[in-house]
Amino acid sequence: MNDLSAVARALEECRHVILCGHVMPDGDCLGSAAALGLALEARQKRVTLASPDPLPDIYDFLPGAERFRIGEAGLDGDYDLFMALDCSVPARLGALRLLLDRPLTVVSVDHHAGGDANFARYFYVDPRAAATGEIIFDLLQLMQIPVTPDIAACLYTAIVTDTGSFRYQNTTPATHRRAAALIEQGADAPLLNTLLFSRKSLLHLRLLQAALANLNLSAGGRVAWMHVTAEMMTSLGAREEHSDGLIDYIRSIRGVEVAVIFRETSPGQFKIGFRSKERVDVNKLAALFGGGGHVRASGAVVAGELDRLTTQVIAAVEKAVQEAWTE
Amino acid sequence: MNDLSAVARALEECRHVILCGHVMPDGDCLGSAAALGLALEARQKRVTLASPDPLPDIYDFLPGAERFRIGEAGLDGDYDLFMALDCSVPARLGALRLLLDRPLTVVSVDHHAGGDANFARYFYVDPRAAATGEIIFDLLQLMQIPVTPDIAACLYTAIVTDTGSFRYQNTTPATHRRAAALIEQGADAPLLNTLLFSRKSLLHLRLLQAALANLNLSAGGRVAWMHVTAEMMTSLGAREEHSDGLIDYIRSIRGVEVAVIFRETSPGQFKIGFRSKERVDVNKLAALFGGGGHVRASGAVVAGELDRLTTQVIAAVEKAVQEAWTE
Repeated sequence: MNDLSAVARALEECRHVILCGHVMPDGDCLGSAAALGLALEARQKRVTLASPDPLPDIYDFLPGAERFRIGEAGLDGDYDLFMALDCSVPARLGALRLLLDRPLTVVSVDHHAGGDANFARYFYVDPRAAATGEIIFDLLQLMQIPVTPDIAACLYTAIVTDTGSFRYQNTTPATHRRAAALIEQGADAPLLNTLLFSRKSLLHLRLLQAALANLNLSAGGRVAWMHVTAEMMTSLGAREEHSDGLIDYIRSIRGVEVAVIFRETSPGQFKIGFRSKERVDVNKLAALFGGGGHVRASGAVVAGELDRLTTQVIAAVEKAVQEAWTE
Repeated sequence: MNDLSAVARALEECRHVILCGHVMPDGDCLGSAAALGLALEARQKRVTLASPDPLPDIYDFLPGAERFRIGEAGLDGDYDLFMALDCSVPARLGALRLLLDRPLTVVSVDHHAGGDANFARYFYVDPRAAATGEIIFDLLQLMQIPVTPDIAACLYTAIVTDTGSFRYQNTTPATHRRAAALIEQGADAPLLNTLLFSRKSLLHLRLLQAALANLNLSAGGRVAWMHVTAEMMTSLGAREEHSDGLIDYIRSIRGVEVAVIFRETSPGQFKIGFRSKERVDVNKLAALFGGGGHVRASGAVVAGELDRLTTQVIAAVEKAVQEAWTE
């Protein structure tokens, strides 16, 4: 039964809750868990925050960030309630799914479509919510727990990251109104945005500069690609995380439908990233090279020589683009 | 007298209005003018849209974009009302400031601090508004003119561009609530965001690549700057609009407080752009060089030799940063 009141009641009745997001945590699951944790502590509940995987550095500012127990470290505790946030299926809980085998009340709140919340006794899933943070916003209202500036900061983070700064299709009028309320409740939006989006490393830009030097377009500008070699990384002193997001720059080029990046992780070993805008299913494209992902974002890991690899991959991309325009 | 009702009354009484934004037009002045133009036509007013400079390609989708008369072409017309939008001083009207010498009713609506609206008989200046588009939103409400989907798209564009997708300090709860209303009134936000932010020209990235090659940091990484020379533009075949937004890349570097870009618009003539994150008032900084703008975004136009200019400007920036950290 999709019932937020039942979730609220279960939380009211618990003694020690463990709040857990998903593997490869993002701003939504972390911000939602941290916000709810602070709120429940105001209700004198004992709260443990957990994450299957370590937190990305970028979320170090979140109130409560340092309290997350990582992976199996979360398994130790006399919890009577286990709550999953932003997890569509148990597999997304990583090591913490072992908690499902214990005699705990299991609760889930999520906004993904097509998941299976039946692993939880009480759950609320709303695919129209842009972020799980939106549901937590409503849950706190339902439980009449005041939103402190710290809670507001966590929920604002959840919403702004999952909506791509209110740009994605999931953003609704209600999303904007919740953001307005969170700012009034003390979320320092300019600061949070700076922390989230304006802490790029200089090496990231240096790598971008180097990669743009080999940027190529084909198929009348519908396909764009570039590469980052191990040598480029070494000569700049860059690590893999510095190349994260490079593909977004070429995806944003006018007219480009598919963007591809070749990242050499060790000599002769490449991670290929694919992004598309509107028509091409890059999940299928990545599958041709043993990879996978989503319709608009995917990847594959391949071994080979860059030139030959590029020729082979880009030919497949061009074919997919051609098919997408003749369908 | 700062009075939006007086502006509304003047518009109600006019017959043929010319609506004009500022030199180097942006999403706010264009979206505001286009929105108000559509609204006034619904009130049976004759409307001419004008812009001192050509519209950047990126705004080609705005309802009414093709109607803007550019530069002196706007001077011909039997206007009885001249309205400036988003212009803090007459100089920002470019060639169209000649209209101020005619026996027209002059009106101004703006959100810049520290301007001089006295060139207008009726004006409304609200520096707390994130965008002039927010004021136009209120003006239409005051005049009880229904917001059509086209008007909503124009105003959403004005707001989303001037707030950096709701990230900048100027974004208020009211900004988010107006965005919510505009989406309800028919603004297709995901489409508008794609049109605005995922149609970068290839030349923009080429110019970025070239500019990053001269990127410099000082003051322990708190100041970052780069330049685009006329020669760089010419050799790439780039136009001024292709350099728009370059400053945002260096502003987003971790640790940078003030970002500065020097753009050579003609040999020996530079536009300097300033951006800050949290502490430094770049409006004051720009004023040192005869320019102005906002606390977090400003600009100035100066003549000189690049090296000397850079030394001079960066020294002033470093001084401002030092002061901001010792206050």
